[in-house]
Amino acid sequence: MILPAGTTETGLIDGISAAGAAPELMEQTPSADVEILAYGEPTAAPVTPVSPSGCPTPAAITRAVREVIGFDLAVVDAGLSKPTAAPTVDLGIEPGADVREETAVTDAAAIVDRAREYGSTLPDDELLIGETVPGGTTTALGVLTALGEPASVSSSLPANPIDRKQRVVEEALAASNLDPGDCAGDPLTAIDAVGDPVQPTVMGIAAGALDADTAVTLAGGTQMVAVAALLRHAGVDAPLTIATTSFVREEQGDRLGAACDRLDCDLVVTDPGFDDRGHVAMERYCAGEAKEGVAMGGALSLVPDGRMAAVCDRLETVCDRLGIDADGVA
Amino acid sequence: MILPAGTTETGLIDGISAAGAAPELMEQTPSADVEILAYGEPTAAPVTPVSPSGCPTPAAITRAVREVIGFDLAVVDAGLSKPTAAPTVDLGIEPGADVREETAVTDAAAIVDRAREYGSTLPDDELLIGETVPGGTTTALGVLTALGEPASVSSSLPANPIDRKQRVVEEALAASNLDPGDCAGDPLTAIDAVGDPVQPTVMGIAAGALDADTAVTLAGGTQMVAVAALLRHAGVDAPLTIATTSFVREEQGDRLGAACDRLDCDLVVTDPGFDDRGHVAMERYCAGEAKEGVAMGGALSLVPDGRMAAVCDRLETVCDRLGIDADGVA
Repeated sequence: MILPAGTTETGLIDGISAAGAAPELMEQTPSADVEILAYGEPTAAPVTPVSPSGCPTPAAITRAVREVIGFDLAVVDAGLSKPTAAPTVDLGIEPGADVREETAVTDAAAIVDRAREYGSTLPDDELLIGETVPGGTTTALGVLTALGEPASVSSSLPANPIDRKQRVVEEALAASNLDPGDCAGDPLTAIDAVGDPVQPTVMGIAAGALDADTAVTLAGGTQMVAVAALLRHAGVDAPLTIATTSFVREEQGDRLGAACDRLDCDLVVTDPGFDDRGHVAMERYCAGEAKEGVAMGGALSLVPDGRMAAVCDRLETVCDRLGIDADGVA
Repeated sequence: MILPAGTTETGLIDGISAAGAAPELMEQTPSADVEILAYGEPTAAPVTPVSPSGCPTPAAITRAVREVIGFDLAVVDAGLSKPTAAPTVDLGIEPGADVREETAVTDAAAIVDRAREYGSTLPDDELLIGETVPGGTTTALGVLTALGEPASVSSSLPANPIDRKQRVVEEALAASNLDPGDCAGDPLTAIDAVGDPVQPTVMGIAAGALDADTAVTLAGGTQMVAVAALLRHAGVDAPLTIATTSFVREEQGDRLGAACDRLDCDLVVTDPGFDDRGHVAMERYCAGEAKEGVAMGGALSLVPDGRMAAVCDRLETVCDRLGIDADGVA
C-alpha cells in the first residue's frame, strides 16, 4: 500500500470537510493519520482525528486491517504542512494553495514526473494507492468539472455540503479563467488550476506502476474517480480498479458504477459489516460519517473471507487507543 | 522495529568495511538497505549490496524475517548522504564527517534530544532498534576507546582489519586532543569527537523509549555494545537487551558476554541455522562475512520456534531478487 498524504489551503475552507474539528486542526489530520497507520495511534501530531460524535478517521480502520492481515506500507509526503513522526517518502512536494486562487498546485507536471519515476521502480505485482488530504472531495469536484466529466463527489459529512463545494469550484474555475470542460485532455492544467498535490502524486505513482506492468488499485471513493479521470485524460488506458467502501456506494447510488464504467475502471465495493456491532465508531460509519479515506475501502478489500469479524474486533482496540470506547469519546 | 540509517566519511576510509565494494558505492549502501527492508529489493538506490563472493547485506535476512513473521518498521534518517525511495522519519540529522577530523559529529546533544523525544512518543510495549552505517564498527571502537571501555569490535570482513581500525581511532582521538578514557561519563563529547550520527540517534530513541517504560532491545553486535556503553555513561540505568547473531559471538568469543555483563545488558544470540542449506549467501555468513547489521540479530530473535526454516526459504527468494542464486551472483 502506498499512501500519499498532503494538505491544501482548500481544506481550510469552512464547512467542506469533517476531517478535523476546526480549520487550524484540519492541517494536522493527515500527519496524524499516517502516524496511526505507522504506529497505531498519533505520536507527534497534536490531534486525534475523531469527530465529536465519536467517529474515528478512516485511518483507524486501515490500521485495524493492517494489524490483522499485515501488508507493506509506504507513506509518501504529498504536501504535508505539519510535521509527522511517521516515516515518509520525500518527493519534494509542497502543500497546495486554495483553489480559489489562480494557481492551486505549482507544477503538477513535475510532481507527476517524480511520482511516476518512483512508481515505476516498485517491485510489487500489485499496488493499492490511497490518499489522505482534507478538502479532497472539493478538489476532486474541481478537476472533474474542469475535465468536463460528470461531477458527483462524496463527503465526510453525513449531509454532503455539495452546494458549498460547487460554489467553491465555480469561484476556483473563474479565478483561473476556466469554464467547465476547458481542461478536457489536459489534466495537468486542471490540477494546477483547481486540484491538489495529492492528485498528481497518486496519478504519477499509478502511471509509473502501470508502466512496469504492476496491477493498480486506486483505494478510495469519488476522489479516486477523479484520479482515474485524470489518468484517462492523460491517455493512460491500462486497466484500473477502484476499491471503496459500501458507505460511499450507499451515498452515490448508481452514479459510482456509472462513473467507473465511463472511465473503464473495475469497481470493488466492500461492506465491513459494521451494522450490528453496537460500537459507536462503527455506528457512525453506518450513519454516513467519514465513509472512506486513508485507503479504507482498499484495505477492506484485502480482508479474506471469514476475517472481517477479526478486523472489527481489532478496530475496537484501535479505537480504545484513540480514546473512543463502545459508547463514545471517553 | 526502528532502524536508524546513516553515513559518515569514516565509512569511506579504505579497508575498514565490507559494506560496499568501493568507497563511492559505500555511501549508497544504507539507502539501498532500507529500500530492501521497505520494498524487498533496492528501488531508487543504484547499488545492490552484495559482496563479490555472493554475500548479501544483512538487510536481506531482516527482510526475509519480515516477510515471514511481519513486524512494523520505521526507518529513521540518521544522516543518509544519498537519496532513498524508502519512507524515513526526518529528525534533521546530517551525515557524519571523518573521525580523523576534529569534529566527527556536529552536536550529538541535539540529536539525542530529538531522538529521545521521538522515542518517548512511540506507543509500543517493546522496541527493537537497529542500525545501518558503513564504518560503524570503527566509530564504535572510537567511542568505546574514548569512554575507556574495553574495546573489542567485530567486522563485516572475514579477516577483521582491527589494526587498521585502531590506527584510525588513534588518529581520530589525537585530532580531537583526547586520550583513551578522557570521555568517561561524557558520552556526547565522545560522539562529537570520534563517533557517528547513528549512535546518538539510537541512544536517544532508546533513552526516550525507556523513559516511557518501553522494553528496549538494541539489535546488533559490537556497535550496539558501544551504544549501550554510551547510555550507561549517560547515566541511563534501565534494563537493556542486546540481540545479535551467532556469527558475531563466534568471532568475539567470551568478550561479547563479558561486555554485556560489564554494561548490565542481557544478551540474546540467535543462530539462524544457515549451515547445511547449500546456498552461497548462507555459506558466506557461515564463513564469517557480514555477520550482523541492519537489525539482523534482533529480527532473527523474533522468529518463533519451528519457523527458522521458513525464514531460510524466504531468504532464498530475497536473494533471487538481489541477483544471487544458490551458486553465487547470477
